[in-house]
Amino acid sequence: MKPIRKNFGSDNVGPVSPAIMAAMVEANTGAVPSYGGDQWTAQLAALTRDVFETEVEVFSVATGTAANALALSALVPPYGAVYCDSSAHVDTDECGAPEFFTGGAKLLGLPSYDGRLSPAALRAHLEASRAIGVHKSKPTAITITQATEWGTVYALDEVQAIGETAQSLGLSLHMDGARFANAMATLGCSPAEITWKAGVDVLSLGATKNGAMAAEAVVFFRRDLAVEFARRRKRAGHLWSKARFLSAQLIAYLSDDLWLRNARQANAMALRLAQGLVRIRGARLLHEVQSNEVFVVLPEPVIGRLEAAGFLFYRWYLPAGQTLEAGTASVRLVTGLDTEAADVDALLDAAVLEPAVV
Amino acid sequence: MKPIRKNFGSDNVGPVSPAIMAAMVEANTGAVPSYGGDQWTAQLAALTRDVFETEVEVFSVATGTAANALALSALVPPYGAVYCDSSAHVDTDECGAPEFFTGGAKLLGLPSYDGRLSPAALRAHLEASRAIGVHKSKPTAITITQATEWGTVYALDEVQAIGETAQSLGLSLHMDGARFANAMATLGCSPAEITWKAGVDVLSLGATKNGAMAAEAVVFFRRDLAVEFARRRKRAGHLWSKARFLSAQLIAYLSDDLWLRNARQANAMALRLAQGLVRIRGARLLHEVQSNEVFVVLPEPVIGRLEAAGFLFYRWYLPAGQTLEAGTASVRLVTGLDTEAADVDALLDAAVLEPAVV
Amino acid sequence: MKPIRKNFGSDNVGPVSPAIMAAMVEANTGAVPSYGGDQWTAQLAALTRDVFETEVEVFSVATGTAANALALSALVPPYGAVYCDSSAHVDTDECGAPEFFTGGAKLLGLPSYDGRLSPAALRAHLEASRAIGVHKSKPTAITITQATEWGTVYALDEVQAIGETAQSLGLSLHMDGARFANAMATLGCSPAEITWKAGVDVLSLGATKNGAMAAEAVVFFRRDLAVEFARRRKRAGHLWSKARFLSAQLIAYLSDDLWLRNARQANAMALRLAQGLVRIRGARLLHEVQSNEVFVVLPEPVIGRLEAAGFLFYRWYLPAGQTLEAGTASVRLVTGLDTEAADVDALLDAAVLEPAVV
Amino acid sequence: MKPIRKNFGSDNVGPVSPAIMAAMVEANTGAVPSYGGDQWTAQLAALTRDVFETEVEVFSVATGTAANALALSALVPPYGAVYCDSSAHVDTDECGAPEFFTGGAKLLGLPSYDGRLSPAALRAHLEASRAIGVHKSKPTAITITQATEWGTVYALDEVQAIGETAQSLGLSLHMDGARFANAMATLGCSPAEITWKAGVDVLSLGATKNGAMAAEAVVFFRRDLAVEFARRRKRAGHLWSKARFLSAQLIAYLSDDLWLRNARQANAMALRLAQGLVRIRGARLLHEVQSNEVFVVLPEPVIGRLEAAGFLFYRWYLPAGQTLEAGTASVRLVTGLDTEAADVDALLDAAVLEPAVV
Repeated sequence: MKPIRKNFGSDNVGPVSPAIMAAMVEANTGAVPSYGGDQWTAQLAALTRDVFETEVEVFSVATGTAANALALSALVPPYGAVYCDSSAHVDTDECGAPEFFTGGAKLLGLPSYDGRLSPAALRAHLEASRAIGVHKSKPTAITITQATEWGTVYALDEVQAIGETAQSLGLSLHMDGARFANAMATLGCSPAEITWKAGVDVLSLGATKNGAMAAEAVVFFRRDLAVEFARRRKRAGHLWSKARFLSAQLIAYLSDDLWLRNARQANAMALRLAQGLVRIRGARLLHEVQSNEVFVVLPEPVIGRLEAAGFLFYRWYLPAGQTLEAGTASVRLVTGLDTEAADVDALLDAAVLEPAVV
Repeated sequence: MKPIRKNFGSDNVGPVSPAIMAAMVEANTGAVPSYGGDQWTAQLAALTRDVFETEVEVFSVATGTAANALALSALVPPYGAVYCDSSAHVDTDECGAPEFFTGGAKLLGLPSYDGRLSPAALRAHLEASRAIGVHKSKPTAITITQATEWGTVYALDEVQAIGETAQSLGLSLHMDGARFANAMATLGCSPAEITWKAGVDVLSLGATKNGAMAAEAVVFFRRDLAVEFARRRKRAGHLWSKARFLSAQLIAYLSDDLWLRNARQANAMALRLAQGLVRIRGARLLHEVQSNEVFVVLPEPVIGRLEAAGFLFYRWYLPAGQTLEAGTASVRLVTGLDTEAADVDALLDAAVLEPAVV
Repeated sequence: MKPIRKNFGSDNVGPVSPAIMAAMVEANTGAVPSYGGDQWTAQLAALTRDVFETEVEVFSVATGTAANALALSALVPPYGAVYCDSSAHVDTDECGAPEFFTGGAKLLGLPSYDGRLSPAALRAHLEASRAIGVHKSKPTAITITQATEWGTVYALDEVQAIGETAQSLGLSLHMDGARFANAMATLGCSPAEITWKAGVDVLSLGATKNGAMAAEAVVFFRRDLAVEFARRRKRAGHLWSKARFLSAQLIAYLSDDLWLRNARQANAMALRLAQGLVRIRGARLLHEVQSNEVFVVLPEPVIGRLEAAGFLFYRWYLPAGQTLEAGTASVRLVTGLDTEAADVDALLDAAVLEPAVV
Repeated sequence: MKPIRKNFGSDNVGPVSPAIMAAMVEANTGAVPSYGGDQWTAQLAALTRDVFETEVEVFSVATGTAANALALSALVPPYGAVYCDSSAHVDTDECGAPEFFTGGAKLLGLPSYDGRLSPAALRAHLEASRAIGVHKSKPTAITITQATEWGTVYALDEVQAIGETAQSLGLSLHMDGARFANAMATLGCSPAEITWKAGVDVLSLGATKNGAMAAEAVVFFRRDLAVEFARRRKRAGHLWSKARFLSAQLIAYLSDDLWLRNARQANAMALRLAQGLVRIRGARLLHEVQSNEVFVVLPEPVIGRLEAAGFLFYRWYLPAGQTLEAGTASVRLVTGLDTEAADVDALLDAAVLEPAVV
């Protein structure tokens, strides 16, 4: 098997940030109360409140799928529907987890070019749906992904517009923040501004793609929606008996700006990568690079050279309405907290040069 | 708040075994394939095969509730029923997780004195149920707990008898092994003998109560039942992207007899505790102590002295048919890998002496 | 096959009352609005309001299983639990329908002698459950069966006591009224008194066992609980497009006291039957006969004579704590609107005489 | 309120065929075995076998939603996905019933112009899905609607092509035959040819839209898929105790060609309607009229005249890719067994003439 030079396949493949691993080791003192009665879990609650500048209810789980699906199950009844972008991870890559956790609610994926839901499309669909009455699942929530699946970031006024739409339509608003830190590193606003102040009711705050081992936080800004969430988490098998080890990860993540530092590094490397790739003849970016993902059309020979040189990444489907020029393909490249400038430059070199015999 | 002298409340409160923590730190190398495509996950599969001396399918998850409920969902259809002892954790303490994961199957709890299902009771109930036809959920599986919720251990011939019963009735057999290591430390047989050779189809192999941070393995001896289990795990949010950190815990757990060494320590301490307690006037054991739990009736003054001295434990309900003498109460004491002889002796001393002012 | 003399097996086997069949035929005029927009459905709403002397929300479905399971799904979240008597049809004879419709809630069957829940048992169980927190499904509702599965009837003050218990514990109260008319025919109070005035929130008002073809009404006295019930019914496939034919059955049922007249006939025949049977040497009633079911221990020779004479009925399990004298068995005999005195007397004759050659 | 001249709104609003009503009245003899142990249910099984010229398992339910959702629950696991046309009733108008009955499986709606799935689109989507592995729900079934939601009919070779595609891809094939009779009346082949001989595994055989009161049959051609279907029906509340009244409807429906006679009448009236409408200046059909539905673009003044004259019908959404000329709208007109030539001609007259004062 060819040795991997650098893995640009996903931000799921990377290491745990040293500070997070150290926090877990440090939390391994003797016996402490189980199931979240420990001091770390209390500290995480306080810290989350500080980060978001408001009272919140926060629940830790180990995976993003659990965070999203549990959050939606608190917002959407079994006979309900939730609007999302048609590219949304909850609809396309979680093997029906939202349907499972909600007891069979429907996901209504609305198409877009770059993963950002449009308030106008939401309004139009909802009006048509309401006319049909009980034959349609009842739209009750919206979920948006920040940063989106296409690596773009909703601007503050865009989230605000969706928040206002949700409120005027009587829908609750969930944000899938698997890459929330990457979005924050790009936006010039506070966590509070882009979430609850803009109308977000519940946030899945991701950490695993950005340095945690396995830790995500479900953050309820509308605390009334969190009633009995603890039971939902328990019966889904997502309550850890040694809960301190989830909390310790998230405390370290949110402390000393680690989450933002990691995200800034990943974002900067994605930008460096994009800026280099677009200089290649025949290459074109499919989306603006606003977080840590680069979607680019490349000539097949370029792709071949990169693969031959041991770089790992995936061929990807095209956004709606795009077609490929002959002899090209679309790929996705993802950077992470452990991507270095040298990695990017090595890839850019390999893209234009014949690979040396390895 | 009174300082805790020693926590005998649960084996969930304890620390992570140093070897397991070290294995997690060591697994934190650079980028590796995600979602179980890593070398640790492959190694765990091989190691589990070795421990159980047969081909198996093994799936890691973070909690015992997830392990049990996912395992049952692979055995029992939504219109099915699963027999368990009426004390079983799956029925009494998982907030309906089996019902959730199976899509609404029924748990049929049969009563016993000490947590051990009787083949005769199984047969009798099944025959009555079958006579009713489609109005009854279809019995399709049995789940037994080893060691039981009352700290007792099924002997090899007892598991074999249930295995034969299951086979003759056309039911599959699951073993909740949250404290499997504690049972193994007591039994004089091999893991293979007490599981698949005795008719067990699927085992929830616990590690969290016995030294892991958050790791349990669902081990399929009947590998045909594991088809699409990976999708069930994924949609339940129990597939870790950085799966190596689950696998690494379990590898360390099963290596160098760590699982058995931890369990032997806990069991020995439970026995020492029981032997001391029964010498107290008015004390009596409710069950034979065969693993790491002691269920005992104690005079209230004794309980008061222990609480005053800072020992943590829970008052517990009585097994069927038992009644309390006036001035006594029933309590549960649990030992763990971190319980030392000095802890036990301190408790025994406190039980008979007036507490010093702390 | 031996010809059946008379079927005492169940009240499910009987005919449709002529008045109900006539109403269906009469409703078969031309095109009318579908899905309940018709005049019959409006009339049923008004009629139900009159019968119960209060504002209600009423929804028709074709079966008792649907009525009960849908009603419970409106009261109990997936992480919830519902208390019932351990003999309750919802728990024992609906193949897990409540678990299916609620998304995996738990049924907690409390034992009794004659099918009547005791407030004291409810309180005791709830207190124990609350102490365990999120590890237990959250008790949220009680369901009682009127008349009970053992043919007994809750007295007015007994329902009131359960209603008060429910309210003081914060639980909602459902009544499975599959044989509500039989209970009403025995009780000396109004439908309003035994339901919402006594604390019942939702009633499954049965008609199928008592003269309808296939029609039951879910009657919400707490109308806030009916929000979105129409969607639950739709997605369960229980909204008829030609809804008038459900409504027409129930209108005829509730008109001109048909429901009570049918029930009185059945009850009177059960009483006649019981009074005759107890005169047989070796026979003893297991429960007071308060509706249309007779549970009786009979000598095997008597049972043999009845079977030989072509009477249909079932051998039945014993209530808790009962044992059988040698040479006897326990049977259930059910009367219906089509049971005549001559049928009962023929059975009583056959019980004591050798059967003639048929 | 304006009196309705004729209801072209839906085939759900019509009457019960006299022969079907008579059969129900006739079935109302005395006590017969409940839950399908009766002679009508046995006769229906034999008759269905005759109609389809093969061994089948047949189960009656009262609604099309129940028939479809139950059938899909027998084909698709909770972690599965089912392909359908994006216009399919199961996906758009059953309030999430398939998601409920399957325990959260996904419906994957593929777009088409006229409601007919394309084998090529199926293949392409499946290949893409398989590459993603456990992150995608597992495609396990296809459902097609015959006649389609747009009133078109799959030709025999088209169903065969989908059947072959299903088989080669390892998917099972369900046919939603809510208007199966209307399709049969158009096609020149046998029921056997267009179903199991063409690869259909399970058929929802509709009767309610075409003359029954409330009766649909789930017909399993692959009888192995019907295992435990009886339990699924029971726990969904769709097993009638007085099952004879479902069976009697379907027996009458399938006897003496009633189903085909009713459908031929409705189809003929739809054709007459379409032929008249296209003569109106500015009118154009959106789809070929092959069953009992007409989708047509009409000038607003025409629509206004029809509404003013008391004809009932619905404005409808456009098929993909269509746009409206200014001053026109799209409507759906549905005919039924009770539509007469005089009704159609009255509508056509009203369309071109100013309405008289009614």
